[in-house]
Formats: sequence, C-alpha cells, structure tokens
Amino acid sequence: MSSPPLGPRLEARKLKHLEVCLHYPVEFERTTGFERFELPYRALPESDLSRIDLRTRFLGKPLAAPLLIGAMTGGAARAALINRHLAEAAQRLGIGLMLGSQRVMLEHPEALASFQVRRYAPEALLIGNLGVAQLNKGYGAAELTRAVSLIQADALALHTNPLQEALQPGGDADFSALVPKLHALVPELPFPVLLKEVGHGLSPAVAAAVEGAGFAALDVAGAGGTSWAKVELYARYGELRHPELAEWGIPTADALLGVRRALPEMPLVASGGVRTGLDAAKALAMGAQVVALARPLLAPALESAEAVVAHLKTLLWELRVAMHCAGASDLAALARTELLPRRA
Amino acid sequence: MSSPPLGPRLEARKLKHLEVCLHYPVEFERTTGFERFELPYRALPESDLSRIDLRTRFLGKPLAAPLLIGAMTGGAARAALINRHLAEAAQRLGIGLMLGSQRVMLEHPEALASFQVRRYAPEALLIGNLGVAQLNKGYGAAELTRAVSLIQADALALHTNPLQEALQPGGDADFSALVPKLHALVPELPFPVLLKEVGHGLSPAVAAAVEGAGFAALDVAGAGGTSWAKVELYARYGELRHPELAEWGIPTADALLGVRRALPEMPLVASGGVRTGLDAAKALAMGAQVVALARPLLAPALESAEAVVAHLKTLLWELRVAMHCAGASDLAALARTELLPRRA
Amino acid sequence: MSSPPLGPRLEARKLKHLEVCLHYPVEFERTTGFERFELPYRALPESDLSRIDLRTRFLGKPLAAPLLIGAMTGGAARAALINRHLAEAAQRLGIGLMLGSQRVMLEHPEALASFQVRRYAPEALLIGNLGVAQLNKGYGAAELTRAVSLIQADALALHTNPLQEALQPGGDADFSALVPKLHALVPELPFPVLLKEVGHGLSPAVAAAVEGAGFAALDVAGAGGTSWAKVELYARYGELRHPELAEWGIPTADALLGVRRALPEMPLVASGGVRTGLDAAKALAMGAQVVALARPLLAPALESAEAVVAHLKTLLWELRVAMHCAGASDLAALARTELLPRRA
Amino acid sequence: MSSPPLGPRLEARKLKHLEVCLHYPVEFERTTGFERFELPYRALPESDLSRIDLRTRFLGKPLAAPLLIGAMTGGAARAALINRHLAEAAQRLGIGLMLGSQRVMLEHPEALASFQVRRYAPEALLIGNLGVAQLNKGYGAAELTRAVSLIQADALALHTNPLQEALQPGGDADFSALVPKLHALVPELPFPVLLKEVGHGLSPAVAAAVEGAGFAALDVAGAGGTSWAKVELYARYGELRHPELAEWGIPTADALLGVRRALPEMPLVASGGVRTGLDAAKALAMGAQVVALARPLLAPALESAEAVVAHLKTLLWELRVAMHCAGASDLAALARTELLPRRA
Ligand SMILES: Cc1cc2nc3c(=O)[nH]c(=O)nc-3n(C[C@H](O)[C@H](O)[C@H](O)COP(=O)(O)O)c2cc1C
Ligand SMILES: Cc1cc2nc3c(=O)[nH]c(=O)nc-3n(C[C@H](O)[C@H](O)[C@H](O)COP(=O)(O)O)c2cc1C
Ligand SMILES: Cc1cc2nc3c(=O)[nH]c(=O)nc-3n(C[C@H](O)[C@H](O)[C@H](O)COP(=O)(O)O)c2cc1C
Ligand SMILES: Cc1cc2nc3c(=O)[nH]c(=O)nc-3n(C[C@H](O)[C@H](O)[C@H](O)COP(=O)(O)O)c2cc1C
Repeated sequence: MSSPPLGPRLEARKLKHLEVCLHYPVEFERTTGFERFELPYRALPESDLSRIDLRTRFLGKPLAAPLLIGAMTGGAARAALINRHLAEAAQRLGIGLMLGSQRVMLEHPEALASFQVRRYAPEALLIGNLGVAQLNKGYGAAELTRAVSLIQADALALHTNPLQEALQPGGDADFSALVPKLHALVPELPFPVLLKEVGHGLSPAVAAAVEGAGFAALDVAGAGGTSWAKVELYARYGELRHPELAEWGIPTADALLGVRRALPEMPLVASGGVRTGLDAAKALAMGAQVVALARPLLAPALESAEAVVAHLKTLLWELRVAMHCAGASDLAALARTELLPRRA
Repeated sequence: MSSPPLGPRLEARKLKHLEVCLHYPVEFERTTGFERFELPYRALPESDLSRIDLRTRFLGKPLAAPLLIGAMTGGAARAALINRHLAEAAQRLGIGLMLGSQRVMLEHPEALASFQVRRYAPEALLIGNLGVAQLNKGYGAAELTRAVSLIQADALALHTNPLQEALQPGGDADFSALVPKLHALVPELPFPVLLKEVGHGLSPAVAAAVEGAGFAALDVAGAGGTSWAKVELYARYGELRHPELAEWGIPTADALLGVRRALPEMPLVASGGVRTGLDAAKALAMGAQVVALARPLLAPALESAEAVVAHLKTLLWELRVAMHCAGASDLAALARTELLPRRA
Repeated sequence: MSSPPLGPRLEARKLKHLEVCLHYPVEFERTTGFERFELPYRALPESDLSRIDLRTRFLGKPLAAPLLIGAMTGGAARAALINRHLAEAAQRLGIGLMLGSQRVMLEHPEALASFQVRRYAPEALLIGNLGVAQLNKGYGAAELTRAVSLIQADALALHTNPLQEALQPGGDADFSALVPKLHALVPELPFPVLLKEVGHGLSPAVAAAVEGAGFAALDVAGAGGTSWAKVELYARYGELRHPELAEWGIPTADALLGVRRALPEMPLVASGGVRTGLDAAKALAMGAQVVALARPLLAPALESAEAVVAHLKTLLWELRVAMHCAGASDLAALARTELLPRRA
Repeated sequence: MSSPPLGPRLEARKLKHLEVCLHYPVEFERTTGFERFELPYRALPESDLSRIDLRTRFLGKPLAAPLLIGAMTGGAARAALINRHLAEAAQRLGIGLMLGSQRVMLEHPEALASFQVRRYAPEALLIGNLGVAQLNKGYGAAELTRAVSLIQADALALHTNPLQEALQPGGDADFSALVPKLHALVPELPFPVLLKEVGHGLSPAVAAAVEGAGFAALDVAGAGGTSWAKVELYARYGELRHPELAEWGIPTADALLGVRRALPEMPLVASGGVRTGLDAAKALAMGAQVVALARPLLAPALESAEAVVAHLKTLLWELRVAMHCAGASDLAALARTELLPRRA
C-alpha cells in the first residue's frame, strides 16, 4: 500500500465533488418510488403523539431513532469540519453516523485526523467506509481492519459503485470476481460489515449473490435522491452528458422491496432520496431497520452541528406525526403496517 | 370543565383560520377520486328534468335534497353572522346544517348565542359538533348532551382529526384509547351521533373499529377538498411546510367506497371536495345518503343567506341535470346506478 | 301543430349557435378514444394505393365512400346557403348528407325552401332530421312523414339530446316514456329511421332499449368532437359554466365499441370528433358502416361547395393511405382488421 | 431499364430530403418504447469495464461491435462525400455500413462512382440498398445483382416503405403482390438479402409473410427516430400536414419484440431512434444481433470521417458502460439479460 503525499488531483476532485453536490442539479429526475405508496391514514389512531417511541437497535447498538447520517467524503480541507459537525449531531440525537470513504486516510496518513470523530460522538454508532473495488487493488482484511480501528468505528460499510467509477476519469472500473472475495473476506473481519451502493441501488440479484457472505446489513442506496453519476458527469464536463446513464438505477422503494423479498431476514438500510418523515415511515413499513440520508445534510454540516440537528429533528418530528396518524405507536407497529398503492 | 374568559389566543387562532381558508391555497393538490369515475350518460333517459325528485330522509328527518351544509367554526366575532346565514339558507332549501365545533361555547358561555340558530331554521336538521379528542380531556356524556340541548340540535357530529391536531401548536394530540370510550359513550347518548373527519378521510379500518358503537352515520370527510393540514400550516408559518403531510389523506371517493364496503348498512355522508352536482351524483351513486360541503360556502356565508342559497341552488340544479341525463328520476334510482371507470 | 311566424327568439338562438360553433372553444377537452387504438401498420401491404376501393352501401343506397356529412342547422338566414353547399358537395363526392333539425321548417313553412336541396343532390343519400323529444310535444307519424316527404329525403334521423336540452333556456327536457313511443312509431314509418345523439354518445343501455324498435341504423355521435353542452353554455352565458357537465359523454370509440357489442347486427354511424382519415379508418375497423362529421364542415359550407369538397377529399385521401398501409384494399378487409392498443 | 440523364427533379428532391433531415423536426413525437424498459443495474457486476467484449459476426462477417451505419441517400452532389466518410468510419471502427438507395445509380450511371466506397472500407461489411416497390417496376434478379456487384457489396438491403411512398408526390405506391415475388426472387440471389423499413416498423404479420422467403436478416426500422413520413411532408409542403399519418408506425422496441417472437431464429437489426448506448444495450438484450442508426450521423458525415467515428465511439463507450453495470461482459451475456419494466 503506497502512501504518496495527498496529491492535488485527488484533493481537487474531492473539492469539486462537494461544489457539484452543493450547486448542481444532481438529484435524479426519476423518483424513489415512495410516492407510489400510501401510508394508511387512520382517523382514530388510538395513539398519543407525545409518546411515539422511535427507539431501536442497529448493528448491536441502541439508537434513539431509526436514522443514520449517510456517508459523505469531504475533501481534506473541509472533511474535518464536516465530520465533526455530523458526529456531534449524531451524538446529540442518539443516531448513527456513516463516515465517507477512508481510502484517502489509508493512503495519506495526514488525512487521518479528519476522520477521528469518536471524541465528538462517544456513544454514537460509528460506521467506517471503503470502496469494494479496492479489494481488486490490494486491499484486504488488514487494511479494512486498520480503517475501522484507527477511528474506533463500530462497523464498516463497503460501497459498491460501478456506474460512478465508470464515469469518473481514472475510476476503478475493475469489479471482476469481487463476490467470491467478499465471501472469503467478510467472515474474517472482527466487526459488522455493511454493503451499500451510492445511489444507484442494490437489486435482488446482488442480494442473492452476497447471501451467506456474512454481511451484517445491506444499505440499498437506491435511485431518486443524489445521482452519483450526475455528480461525476458535472464534475467532469461541467454539464450533463449521457443523461440516460445518469438516470440509471433502481428506485429506492423498488430496491428495498426487492432486496427485502430476496433476503427476508437481512437487516436493511433504506437510503437514496429519503427526504421527509413520510418517506422514512414508508421505508420502515416496507421493512427497513433504519433509514439514511446524505446530501441534504451537506450544507448544514458545513455550517454547524446545530444546523444538522435542526434538519434531522424536523424529519423525526414528521416521522412521529406520520406514525401517530397511521396508528403506529412504535417501530414494531410501523413494521406491521401495510402500505397501500397511491392513486389520486 | 373550567370556563376562563374567551382567551385572545384561541380567538386569534380561529380568526386566522378563517382568513387562511378564504385567502390561501388550502385545497388539496390530490383529487377526490370522483374524476376517476363516470356517471353513465343515457341518451334516452325516460325521465323529465322538471320532475326529478331529490327528497330523502336523514337521521330521522326529511330533507328536500340530499345535502348538508358542512361544519365550519367562525371565531367569536363572525360566528354569529355565519351561523345565522347558514341556518337561514338550510331552512329555505330544506336541507341540513352541521355547526362548527362547540367547544368554545362550552368553555366560554358568552359564545353560546352565536350557536343558537334554531330560531332561523325551525325545521332544518341541525347537527352539533365536538372534537373526539376532548373525550381525553374530561368531556363525557354530560358535556355532549349539554352541547346538543343548548342549541336544540337534532344530532351531534364528533370530529376526529389527528393530523390537524398534530400540526396545530398546542393541539390535542392524545388520541389514545378513544375507540373503547366511544363504544361506551355513544349508546348512552339520547340523540343520533355522527363520526366525521375534517378532510383527511375515514378508512375501512376506522369504520370497522367503530362498528357496533352505535353511530347513526359516518361522514367520510375525505381528501381532495379543503386540507386542514394546509390550513394549520399556513396559519402557523404563513407558508406551506411539510407539504407531504399536508397532502396526506384518503381521497373522498376511495374513503366512501372503502367505508361502504366495510359497513354496508351504515348511513354515510360524503364530504371533502364535493364541488359540483356531478360530484354529488357520483357520491350518491356510490352509496352516500347525503353529501356535504364546507369551504365553498364560507365566502357566501359572510355575505348573506341569499348568497349561500344561490350557491347551493346551482349545485342542486347540476345534480338534477346529472340525474336526468343518467336516467335516474329519484335518489333510489341514482343509488342503483353503476358508475363506470373514466378513461379518456 | 301550431305555426306562428318564425319567432325572432328561435331565429336569434340558431344564429347564435352558428357563431358559437365558429368562434368558441366548443370541442371537448376529453378525446374520442381513437387515440388509444392503433391501426396496424403493414410494411408489405400487398395493395396498390391507386386502387383502394371505398365504395359501400348505406340505408339501401350506394355511396362512393363510407362518409356522411353530419347534421347541422343553420338559422333561417344562412341555412339555405349552407344546405345547398353541403348538398352539392355530397352529390359531387357521392356521399350522404344528414340535414339539420327540420322542426323550424315544420313550424314555420317559410323555412321550407332552405331544406329543399334534392335538386342539388339528385342521387345523394339524403337524411332528414328531427328531435326525439318532439314526440312528447305532439309530433307523430304524420309530422315525421311530412318532414321526410317535403324534402324528398331517403331517411330520417331522430336526434336524442337530453343534456343539450337541459342546458338550453326553455329546452325540451321531458324525455319520459320515449322508448315505448319509439317502439310503436318507428315500424309504422315508410322510410328508414336512424337514431343519433348530438355529441354526448349512445351507450349499450340505450342500444338495448331500442333493440327491436325497427331503427335502420344508430349514429353513436359520441364525445371528443363538438360538445353541444359547451355550445349551449357559451350561447347562454358567453362563458363556460358547469364545465364538468360540458365534458360529460361517452367517448366516440367507447360508444362505438359498446353499441357494436350490444347490437352486433345493427348498422352503425361513427360520429363525434371524427377529424382525420385515420380516425375514420379506426372507426370502420371497429365496426362502423360509415362515419360522419359536422362542425369541421361549417366554415367551408359558409364559403362554397368546393371548400366542402376539398376538406372531405383530404380526409378521404388520408383514409385511402391508411387503408393501403394497413393492407386493406377495400372496406370489407378494413372491417376485418384488428386494432391494437396504442402504447408509446 | 431506361437511363435518362439524372433529372433535375429527382436530384432536387434528394437534396431537399437532406435539407429537411438536417433542419426540420422530423423525429417522431412518439417514442421508440425503449424508455419503457429498464436494463437491470447490477451493483456487483463481476466485470471489468476495460475488458467488455463487443465483438460479433453479422451476415457472415466479423464486426468489432454490433453496429451498422444506417442507410442514407445523399443526392448526387453530396452522396460521394457522405458515403466516403461513412465508409472510412466503418472501416476504422470495424463495423458495418448500409448504403442508401442505389436506384439512382442503376438508372443514372454517372451516379455510380458516389457509391463505390469499397476502397475506403476494404474489410467492412458493406450492404447495398434498393426499394422493394421497384420489383413492380421491372426490377428483378439481374438489377439487384448488378447493384451489389457494381459496388462490391457483401449483401443487399431491400427497403419497404409504403407510407413514405404514399406521401411522396409521384411515389411508387403499388405494393401489390410483392410477397410472392420476394419468395421467388430472394432464394435466387447469390448474396445475403435483408428486408428493412425506413422508420415505420416491421410487424409480426410482415415477418410471418416473409418467413421462408430466404431473407438473411430483418431490420425492424421502427418508429421513434426519424419519421420518413415527416421528411416527405416537410419536403412537399414546408410544413407538417396530416400529423397523424406522420406519427404512424410501430415503435422500435415493440417491432423488435414482435418480430423476435414471430421468427425466433431470424437475425434482426434494431433501428429507428437508436440514439444511446443504453438504447443499444436494450435492443441487444431484446434479441437484436446488431443495431443501426442513420440520421444522427448525417451532419457528422457531411463534416468528416473523424466526426462520424467520434459520434459512434461515444455510443459504443455508453454501450460498454451499460453492459459493465448490467454485469454482461460480452454480447452473449447481454442477450441473456432480462429487461425489467421501467416504473418510476
Ligand atoms: C458529498 C457526498 C459525498 C459522498 N461520499 C460518499 C462516500 O465517500 N462513500 C459512500 O459510500 N457514499 C458516499 N456518498 C453517497 C451517499 O452516502 C448516499 O448513498 C447517496 O448520496 C444517496 O443518498 P442521498 O440521496 O440521501 O444523498 C456521498 C454523498 C454525498 C452527497
Ligand atoms: C372555515 C372552516 C371551519 C371548519 N370548522 C370545522 C369544525 O369546527 N368542526 C368540524 O368538524 N369540521 C370543521 N371544518 C371542516 C369541514 O367540516 C369539512 O370536513 C372540510 O372542510 C372538508 O370539506 P370541504 O372540502 O367541502 O371544505 C371546517 C371547515 C372550514 C372551511
Ligand atoms: C352548427 C351545428 C348544428 C348542428 N345541428 C344539429 C341538428 O340540427 N340536429 C342534429 O341531430 N345534430 C346537429 N348537430 C350535431 C352534429 O350532427 C354532430 O352530432 C355533432 O356536432 C358532433 O359531431 P362533430 O364532432 O363532427 O361536430 C349540429 C352540429 C353543428 C356543429
Ligand atoms: C438522410 C437519410 C436518407 C435515407 N435514405 C434511405 C435510403 O435510401 N434507403 C433506406 O432504406 N433508408 C433510408 N433512410 C432511412 C434510414 O435508413 C433509417 O431506417 C431511418 O432513418 C430510421 O433510423 P434513424 O431514426 O436512426 O434515423 C434514410 C435516412 C436518412 C436520415
């Protein structure tokens, strides 16, 4: 594993990604699919809004609400700030935090500090992050373990992103033979491992391919929110080329339902375009254990932990209203709620 | 039951609700669903338009047409005027009138006069109104009976509105254990009791929950007309936040069909977005005994009884044309008419 | 049958109808439904465009093409001109002509001349026209026979139009007991009788009601073209009130398919929004014997017979192209062609 | 076969066609239908983008990618330039080239040179082109063979275009009895023969009609790309008349699926509106052996071979990305991929 100084090219690209995420229309045109479903409104809910119970457990840790802050890399300059604000928010809300890709940190030790947020979130569920394609570039159990232990994380998320990498100049586009590698590697690792996409979605076929590989959870990270294909294309050309590729992916609701059916017992994270408490409620009713969101937290994270907390409090309040008016006082009741097709 | 002077806050809020209802876009974007159905046009109807018979009975009283003026509170200052105009219109048209919530009147006796409209509508079916959530705040048979008898009403409508209350600052958001309370209370009451929503709809599940509780009728009060979530949100923030919550609810046609299937014998009121005679005809063909509308009558009611009468006469004329051209000379024939799906 | 001088009110109204038909948006928003079907394109049609055969017979007379000019009244002043141009065009094209309502002519003999167009169309199929509601106003076999014989017509079309009459000030809105009257009357009449709507459509139920009554053909006159409800509403108010009533009706394609299924042997005219040769081809493939169109011919008819001929030649050329490219060399082959649902 | 000097009328028309194709909105409004299908995104594709294998064989010749340049005539003045640039591009990319109609060349020998592009594409699959309607004008095996041998083509495409010809002033609209002629003629010809439309699509019925006639492949040339009806109408009137005829045709995806089902063993070309690598990938997954595109290459072909190569390289890169992210490393794997309906 070489360790050259943090090259200006990688640094520049990461910065550009942030700018693109903040200022370009990188959301999918296509929708998450949640809008096709209806949480049944129950005019006599038999519940008390002030006592809706959002508590749950995920990857062995208690959460005050079924919510993770989604993985976001920040570029060396701002990563430390972003990660700290996100960690403080996670701690205050009692929710989980997925960090952005730690590859930069493994390859450029000077970047390590920006990932070390455990001190700001002593009790939060903290999840590290690496790209699965790195397994074809020499990464193995040692590197993954180092990534987790250096930041005192509770778990590791491996992201798989063939479309993003294909559209990135010099992206890692060799995804060959990763499935057997994962089957061999994951059981070896001394911490829970999660598989996630970055916004184009996991399918039932992918779920089936990793069945038995030992993943602790899958994050479907479907289409309908941030399109990482769009981020790469805007970063590369300053305009949207190949718009059809940029809209490719499995809408989050379809990804969730598909993977849930393929692996009924696997804990699932619903992410990709989760924006409101009603989205979250529908995802949880469809069988997700927790939901995650990323890009909507980017601007708040650049500002302050309070801004992140405020944003998420609104979403959690909406989730409580949604559960209350659906007659679900806790997450177990919500999970039993049957969604209806939305018509008018 | 405490009785403080009519606080400026409650008064202010009610006023604000009126302003919002008059001047803000508080109608649902989503539709009632009536537009998905087609009243079958019958080119040889075998009927005479001048002899279409709209007479019916509801809650034991005869009505000249299957129509109720919907429940509207008016704020102390204007309630008296509004209620009087509505009562005079009901009397002249021979239709029913549902009054707005009487909570203010029970808690602030000086508001009583504004509800006492029996003298303007000596024969009309007059229906009182209270929120079901008050049953968790100390209200019981005594209060409900007092509400009805103080205004010489024929019946009482209990409104259930968990979404509205959840969005209202200081709203009554405790809806726990109301179903058993209703089962115990309603049979005790010496007048017919109706259960209604305020525009987000009753579902088959709610209908099933109150089966056998002794309700004389259910008013589905579905989505597609006035969104009380929007009213509360505009009143609170001056803008539309949480738009998804504001659009939540069961479209009136779906609510009607669902509740009709769940409780085939229960008399039903169709309300929420009923705007035209064709809407009314479809609702009656779907199994409603009567229809009701509220917000479209607010501006006329501030003006005069004549304005209310004129508005409703137009709707009733449309209803007669619709029945005539569907070959239904009376409401029994209309109830036997099978609607078609609307396609082009 | 009284015969007062042609009152200025009736005259004025008819004039107004013409103005409205020419200058107001009286077409339905809803479509005919033909756009939901696809005539199968056949890249190897085995036919010769120059030899497509449009000849047919209708009501016992040969037609050079399966086309009727639709019924249009013109108001005393312009009826003579319009009817003459239409008759000359029918003669030149070898097609049929349905005249507008002859009620004015029966009640005001001075209007007779404007209907006497046989001299301009010695061989054309000529069809008289009266409203079925007149049967409740004293009309019987004698009046109907007089209407036909005074103008040397080959047949009579009875129009039934409950929605139009309902929206017309002073309209004839008594349609009671017409079905038995028709069953008694039609078999008595010594000429073929056709039943038609005026643009809101005949349904299977109406077809079933007149089964066995002796009609020689039914003209479904469905929704999707001229809305006579709109014509009446614009004529009455200068603006579109009651828009839902104005859009009521059975789309022409649905009316045609429905009536065809109800009465498989009954000759059918498809009208209401037939605008192009492809519309005509689809209608003929769905089982119509002939198609008719009215309002698109109004402006040409005010101009000249040539203008009418030119308009209809374009439509007939399109029909021939459509038949050619569907591989149907004649109308029998077209009638055997199965339409497909249109998707993209 | 007469051979008058290249008449200014034919020449002028061809030029006009080019101008119309370049500057008028001749694309269908209706879509190819590919947008109704979804290539399944596979987040763990097990493939390496740099090793995606596009090689295939078609009509007995190897191709570096499953792609043909579509048939385009160019008018005498520019045909030579266009054909040369296209041929050079085909040679460089290792793909096939379908030339435009050779009728002009057979009837006006001075036009021959512009078709003789073998020297620019010594190894490319080169396909000649004639209209099937010429078989009713005296063309037979001799003329077809001459067309192929004069330009050293590997195969001949016969285009059938009844709608285009019907809309063209003086078009060849006699398509009678061509099916038996083709059954007699094609087996006689000493080179592979392909049947194609020009953008309105082949149907299962047409496929069935030519089953057993000896065609080496069918090019469905469906609707959704260039509408040759529009090209003719703009060329004739300068505006779009008969818009419904201009939109007639079988969307390419439907044509492909229909013909594939009718003739499961027949090699198929998918063309008509193929614009992106994802379109191509879907067509290949639906069972096409190769795809073709025409009009998007017209402007580049007027410029240079490089411009054509650049355009097609982009499409091939998109195709490789699509295959990679669908987990299909080669065309056999892509052909086994099952498409999903696209929903959100
Ligand atoms: C600025 C930014 C940086 C991201 N970086 C990473 C990353 O390093 N690793 C990863 O797995 N996902 C990364 N993501 C993807 C998100 O975790 C998430 O899957 C995706 O944005 C879809 O969720 P959203 O619609 O809520 O944004 C990033 C997203 C954003 C907006
Ligand atoms: C100004 C106003 C005040 C209302 N007040 C009450 C009320 O006090 N009690 C109640 O049950 N519903 C109340 N409603 C709700 C209506 O009765 C009705 O259910 C709802 O507005 C949907 O019907 P619409 O679409 O015809 O307006 C009120 C509605 C309006 C517009
Ligand atoms: C100006 C005008 C006058 C009409 N007058 C009559 C009439 O007298 N009798 C009748 O049966 N239909 C009458 N119609 C209706 C047409 O015959 C036809 O049914 C209707 O317009 C729908 O066809 P379209 O969409 O082709 O216009 C009239 C239509 C027009 C436009
Ligand atoms: C300028 C131009 C000329 C064409 N000439 C011919 C021709 O001579 N013979 C033929 O079979 N098709 C011809 N075509 C039709 C194309 O081969 C193709 O079938 C059609 O354009 C649809 O494909 P596209 O949507 O990719 O353009 C021509 C197309 C264009 C744009």
